[in-house]
Amino acid sequence: MQHTYLQCISCDYKTDLLEERKFRCPDCGDLYDIKHNFEPLLKSTGTGFNALTLIFDERAKRSVFNPKNEATRSSGVWRFKELIMPYLDEKYIVTLGEGNVPIVPAGKHLSKWLGKDVEVWMILEGMTPTGSFKDFGGTVLMSVAKAAGIQAIACASTGDTSAMTAAYAAAAGIECAVILPKGFVTSVQLAQPLAHGAKIINLPGNFDDCMRVMQELVRDYGVYPANSLNPARIEGHQTTVFLTAQFFGWQLPDWFAVPVGNGSNCSSIGKALRLMESFGRGTISKILGCQSEAANPLAKSWAMVERGGQADPRDWKMAFRPIQVGETTATAARIGNPVSRDKVMREIFYTSGAMQIASERDLNEAVAVCGKDGYFVCPQTGIALAGTRNAIKRGWIKKDQKVVVVSTATGLKFTDSVAAGLQNNITDAKDCETSTVAKILRF
Amino acid sequence: MQHTYLQCISCDYKTDLLEERKFRCPDCGDLYDIKHNFEPLLKSTGTGFNALTLIFDERAKRSVFNPKNEATRSSGVWRFKELIMPYLDEKYIVTLGEGNVPIVPAGKHLSKWLGKDVEVWMILEGMTPTGSFKDFGGTVLMSVAKAAGIQAIACASTGDTSAMTAAYAAAAGIECAVILPKGFVTSVQLAQPLAHGAKIINLPGNFDDCMRVMQELVRDYGVYPANSLNPARIEGHQTTVFLTAQFFGWQLPDWFAVPVGNGSNCSSIGKALRLMESFGRGTISKILGCQSEAANPLAKSWAMVERGGQADPRDWKMAFRPIQVGETTATAARIGNPVSRDKVMREIFYTSGAMQIASERDLNEAVAVCGKDGYFVCPQTGIALAGTRNAIKRGWIKKDQKVVVVSTATGLKFTDSVAAGLQNNITDAKDCETSTVAKILRF
Repeated sequence: MQHTYLQCISCDYKTDLLEERKFRCPDCGDLYDIKHNFEPLLKSTGTGFNALTLIFDERAKRSVFNPKNEATRSSGVWRFKELIMPYLDEKYIVTLGEGNVPIVPAGKHLSKWLGKDVEVWMILEGMTPTGSFKDFGGTVLMSVAKAAGIQAIACASTGDTSAMTAAYAAAAGIECAVILPKGFVTSVQLAQPLAHGAKIINLPGNFDDCMRVMQELVRDYGVYPANSLNPARIEGHQTTVFLTAQFFGWQLPDWFAVPVGNGSNCSSIGKALRLMESFGRGTISKILGCQSEAANPLAKSWAMVERGGQADPRDWKMAFRPIQVGETTATAARIGNPVSRDKVMREIFYTSGAMQIASERDLNEAVAVCGKDGYFVCPQTGIALAGTRNAIKRGWIKKDQKVVVVSTATGLKFTDSVAAGLQNNITDAKDCETSTVAKILRF
Repeated sequence: MQHTYLQCISCDYKTDLLEERKFRCPDCGDLYDIKHNFEPLLKSTGTGFNALTLIFDERAKRSVFNPKNEATRSSGVWRFKELIMPYLDEKYIVTLGEGNVPIVPAGKHLSKWLGKDVEVWMILEGMTPTGSFKDFGGTVLMSVAKAAGIQAIACASTGDTSAMTAAYAAAAGIECAVILPKGFVTSVQLAQPLAHGAKIINLPGNFDDCMRVMQELVRDYGVYPANSLNPARIEGHQTTVFLTAQFFGWQLPDWFAVPVGNGSNCSSIGKALRLMESFGRGTISKILGCQSEAANPLAKSWAMVERGGQADPRDWKMAFRPIQVGETTATAARIGNPVSRDKVMREIFYTSGAMQIASERDLNEAVAVCGKDGYFVCPQTGIALAGTRNAIKRGWIKKDQKVVVVSTATGLKFTDSVAAGLQNNITDAKDCETSTVAKILRF
């Protein structure tokens, strides 16, 4: 892929995407971005971005007729191939039919809970093959791995990434190993890598230990990483922005609100917004990055240096410290030292966005409120919703602005925490008589 | 809705859909079908079914641009409103964004397992708001309930129906109670009704007890049913056929293979096929109804009377006996005396379809095989896949025929059974050293 390459985010060192195995700049040790030279592409499509949106619209329209199973039609991610991985040969695409997720307006209970006069939507990225937003990145990651001839892949994960990696590796015919923090993933989250034939290694530590081991496996043992260290995933996660823009007739909302764990979602939204800006799409959205009280290394350091919702990147960098994570129901974002912290904060600053901390109480309440509207979302979605509510209260999100909240996974992956505290709604009938049940129902 | 009405499936007694509360014919006690007089509709759209397909195609095309959240665009069920509930006022529609599910070709492992030369696809109806195919029926049921002015609704369920009912009732603002067989639903399945604010009643019996109590609550206490007793759900489940037909350019596959529990899916596919036939759409698909060994009342009685894959309805009716269900991982289809048995068998016979029994071993193997392709499906999907394999082996499904297998739920609802027996793929590392993990990975 001669027009696609890796570039260090600090020192501009460049290297080949399909040849790279270590995913750290040899000069300065920093992370890579993927870059595409869009010029040859834009020449071939004619009039630039508008011509591309016509292609995307046409594919979307034809996505429901697809007996030949063309990936650019069946996948809501590969619909945007020209923006995501323009020069990848289509024969390498590994898809499970991801990406056609609903974008829904906040229900009655949620609207009331958030406060009035702000237009809030949710993009339900849990309605994907493995049940989380990770699939948007996974399909791109695994397609690149296939193009690079990779035989085995590994990741460290609190759960969702391992499910995604195992599923897409299976689809690609690539061997897979996942490193999990023992005791911190639910049996539900363990079931997916098992079902997809991955090798599971339980580490007697927390997620940060898993991440360190994973990074050292890549650096010292030649293991190919599926973590967000591998920037191919970021390309796929841009889909959140493109799907949303298309949904609103190629208009961007005022804000994207996202939960921030390791930060891949946040980085990718920023990247997609910059890309649209570079193509002349006018004012871009601001990013609201939200973290739980228990795992708030970025939001805490940002809060230390912000004034009226704005902050200086250098101040933030001085203030940042990794933290020891506490207990939270939002286990998938329980990360004290995010690998992609610089990418995350770069995008928050670039979009004039902000960060918010969600209290444990608020994030759980947000999940419960969605339940009352009929939506079953994960606790990380609760972080983004609670953060949105705080930003509305503080006046950072203003009257009549439009906010798209990223719902990162289905509640089915977090049933224990969602159901906790609701057991008093269960009544055991003493027998199987209809009159007994009628009495309980007060009929 | 003057052109929509209920009609007894035995004696042609007719009554009003929005007024009905008992859902049993007062003359003969049998179930109702919903009927629509399509003539006024066809007059208004001009040239009949072709004109309708153009409307459906147009809505599908526009489903990705929907900032006004119109239900006929955002829902893959209401896209087909004119076939499903043509005369319902759109203001009553209760949708959670269901219906835009992928239709995917069998993966490499599954194709090999099924045997060659048959073209098998899966429609992944687990990629819905509550994680099962029930949502297709739920959105229609709850919209009709809203139009009928219902304040409270109840259902008996092994899990998926309760999740669906609770979610859509929440979205509709209708109170909800669910009756579950204590000990036969997973904690995952309990979490959804809890999250959606339903009142849960645990019965010390099996699903058949729950169903009997539910039917008596309807008959004697005026409880409004969300079970398949209520034929509004059947209307929504027809979406499986319409989505599939649209996907293949308004051509039907040779077979639909479905797991049969209480039978709503099977009845609805038959209904949709008849509807397309009545509109002159040529040869319709055959239905392959599949049941597990543990809960095979219909397939067992059918097998007793079939000769070369064909059977006589009267012979079947003589042979049928309710059974005591045994143990199976496919708990959602663990039903010994299906309420909709007559509707199910009517459609099997009408389409010149067949029934198959899946052994416990085969159905679990089918789920495992899908996992190796990257698809995480429920055990009931395993029943349909194992039945398809049997029908291919027996030559009932012939070379080069096209089969669409209905995958009824995500594996996330059945993680315990899916993960069972795979625990030997888990290795506990003795410490958090990278060299330890590298050794386990043999790097």
